[in-house]
Amino acid sequence: MPMDGSHWLSMKMLIKGSDLYKTVMFVVAYSKEEVAGMFGGLKGSVVHNGSHQEGLLINMERIQMFQAFQARGCKSLLCNLKLMAQLEREQFNALLTDPLLPCGVIIAEKLAVFLDFTDNTDHMTFPQRVQNLLSSMWQPLLCRMIYSSFDELASHYLQRDVSFQELMSHGVVWLLRYDFEYPRLLIRGNNCKVKKGLPVELEEFVNSSGEHGFVVFTLGSLISEMPLKKIDQFAEALGKIPQKVIWRLTGPTPGNLSANIKLMKWLPQNDLLAHPKARVFMTHGGTHGLYEGICNGVPMVMLPLFGDQADNVQRVASRGVGVVLSIYDMTSQSLLDALNTVINDKSYKENMMRLSTLHKDRPIEPLDLAVHWTEFVMRHKGAEHLRPAAHDLNWIQYHCLDVIGLLVVIVIAVTLVTVKSCVFCFRKCCRRSGKKKSD
Amino acid sequence: MPMDGSHWLSMKMLIKGSDLYKTVMFVVAYSKEEVAGMFGGLKGSVVHNGSHQEGLLINMERIQMFQAFQARGCKSLLCNLKLMAQLEREQFNALLTDPLLPCGVIIAEKLAVFLDFTDNTDHMTFPQRVQNLLSSMWQPLLCRMIYSSFDELASHYLQRDVSFQELMSHGVVWLLRYDFEYPRLLIRGNNCKVKKGLPVELEEFVNSSGEHGFVVFTLGSLISEMPLKKIDQFAEALGKIPQKVIWRLTGPTPGNLSANIKLMKWLPQNDLLAHPKARVFMTHGGTHGLYEGICNGVPMVMLPLFGDQADNVQRVASRGVGVVLSIYDMTSQSLLDALNTVINDKSYKENMMRLSTLHKDRPIEPLDLAVHWTEFVMRHKGAEHLRPAAHDLNWIQYHCLDVIGLLVVIVIAVTLVTVKSCVFCFRKCCRRSGKKKSD
Repeated sequence: MPMDGSHWLSMKMLIKGSDLYKTVMFVVAYSKEEVAGMFGGLKGSVVHNGSHQEGLLINMERIQMFQAFQARGCKSLLCNLKLMAQLEREQFNALLTDPLLPCGVIIAEKLAVFLDFTDNTDHMTFPQRVQNLLSSMWQPLLCRMIYSSFDELASHYLQRDVSFQELMSHGVVWLLRYDFEYPRLLIRGNNCKVKKGLPVELEEFVNSSGEHGFVVFTLGSLISEMPLKKIDQFAEALGKIPQKVIWRLTGPTPGNLSANIKLMKWLPQNDLLAHPKARVFMTHGGTHGLYEGICNGVPMVMLPLFGDQADNVQRVASRGVGVVLSIYDMTSQSLLDALNTVINDKSYKENMMRLSTLHKDRPIEPLDLAVHWTEFVMRHKGAEHLRPAAHDLNWIQYHCLDVIGLLVVIVIAVTLVTVKSCVFCFRKCCRRSGKKKSD
Repeated sequence: MPMDGSHWLSMKMLIKGSDLYKTVMFVVAYSKEEVAGMFGGLKGSVVHNGSHQEGLLINMERIQMFQAFQARGCKSLLCNLKLMAQLEREQFNALLTDPLLPCGVIIAEKLAVFLDFTDNTDHMTFPQRVQNLLSSMWQPLLCRMIYSSFDELASHYLQRDVSFQELMSHGVVWLLRYDFEYPRLLIRGNNCKVKKGLPVELEEFVNSSGEHGFVVFTLGSLISEMPLKKIDQFAEALGKIPQKVIWRLTGPTPGNLSANIKLMKWLPQNDLLAHPKARVFMTHGGTHGLYEGICNGVPMVMLPLFGDQADNVQRVASRGVGVVLSIYDMTSQSLLDALNTVINDKSYKENMMRLSTLHKDRPIEPLDLAVHWTEFVMRHKGAEHLRPAAHDLNWIQYHCLDVIGLLVVIVIAVTLVTVKSCVFCFRKCCRRSGKKKSD
């Protein structure tokens, strides 16, 4: 759902390469003359004889008029039941739209951002920072004013009380063409390493697991010893599952070790997880391990120990690809339950395969990106322009406390003056009427 | 400057491909036994017999101990004057470091990041949001505690009062390996289009400009008419420069038109800017025009009209590649001055060539990225996981007003109870001593 004018230029680049691109037209409830009249007024007022301040008011009026016109066009489309039914039959996978024309998001909802201009750079004086904060407070109101006609249209068309902003929040990808914006650089993701084979002895052990497959268990290299009570809890639970278990363990070993468990001082983690018979990965939730699990699509039982691990495992678990246990509160039974859940509930494996596909679906390998940006900094002699200007603010400025302080003082001053004036006037009136009475 | 353990794994990937990679070792002021003892304590306490809460205290103690040890190692390096002099002679272009080991940023400063763990997902209950806000307030304090030994070390070594956090803010690129983070997707940049040749007549006109070159002047397609007074101001200023001028103008034309000016109803903007003789681009600051100017390295005189244009031109001007004029306050003389500045001050052209190089230096073309992410949404059936969870918060929740409200109530309640208790105790004491006196 494109927008006219220069906006269409940006979208055209993305679309015009496709043979499957087709333009659909529809009849609108206004004439060419009306459009010409509206655009004439719009164009004529771009450079006017008035001041810049008068221009702001004209702008506001013009934008509202323009949006009212857009809403009429949108209504013509939404009420074109034949065309809408035809679009519905196409069963589109995605809708590409321009946020300035709200019609696209309304249609996306049926079949399936915003601007704030302050004239400021990233280095602002105190008055500019006041303006900046006020403008960010004024923004939601502005948004509501400009798009009010679309709120009504959307609510009416979708048969429920809904705002345009709410529909907008359903967007999942924003394509921005800006590059002279202030720094926002991000390189992320993990390289799913090439797999090597397993040592012969280990290959034999995991293959002997048959259809049940095997469990990989390691709590990372930083842990060398565990209390014997914990080790026994692990050994008890792991001894009760039909899967084979490869357990990385250093320090004291458990006494009652079941035959399905193989202890190792070190294990080839990624190669084991890459094995087709790997069923569950028991991990402490370090990022290397988690990514190897995600790359290879192995569901997890996670026992975070410290640092970022507690956060990591929550993020992973929220995708339904594993279960989190507290190593302190855990019992042999709760571990057994967790293992059985992850092994037998097919949704864990399905979600993990989906997450793995998502993780590996990227336009450029993160390692290549990391190399590019490292070399970029060298090529451009430090690339100082990538450094956010926010670093140059002090604590008070960064949190806008000086600006908020000024605004509070103004509000208090205005309130006080108003109240005092009212009291003064009131007293004067009372005295006068009192005098009259006494006269 | 790498960090040990699993941290080194991430950095190794980026580095090990290079033939120029070399490890430099230095003597530290502690023995292998001390390191083993420290790591032994560290590893032994990872899974302990206590509760999770006790673990947090142990963690805190351990992190401080670990950082104190790191600081000792760092000091050994900084005080190794021979090695530091040798590093200085290498004249490195960039320093790649791990934020957990602060030594890297101190060294970067001499020759030339942070953690907060809350266990929460992006869908938080009210108590979790309270925890989240408190944790973000506690974070700077934590940072200061953990890195205090490095603050001292850095100030001492760099011979000025400086904090580790300040040094960290000098970093320009952050390489993140996280991908299961909550949504942060960004596609940006403009495609620098392939250039086509100019029509013969136009090519002849611009070539006739000689060494002075020519100026491209257009205020965009939305402007059809300007007040005659403005047109005359433009014509007067443009008639006084030695450059040829191609001016896109519709509506009434000026009377006093100098011979160096050619009026056109439409002009091939990108092809003109791509011409080697293009000296200045006079533009209203729409993003298409600005990017064409940046792609082709042409300095600008910018006259923003409305919408995003005022912001765009400030961002561009702050790079020193052009001058901004208000079309309302402008005079013929101020325009002439602006043109002469941009043409004769070589810094504008130099800055613009640098900006152009930066803009075109990217690992993947923005159009390819846009195609990738559009298809990504279709492949993954709407890619709902890319949608930020913040959209599901209401206005009060989004601004943490409920959390702040609760905290304020608690502070007030505690203050009141404390004051009341004190007053009560004080009165009781006074009465008692009063009684005693009267006894």
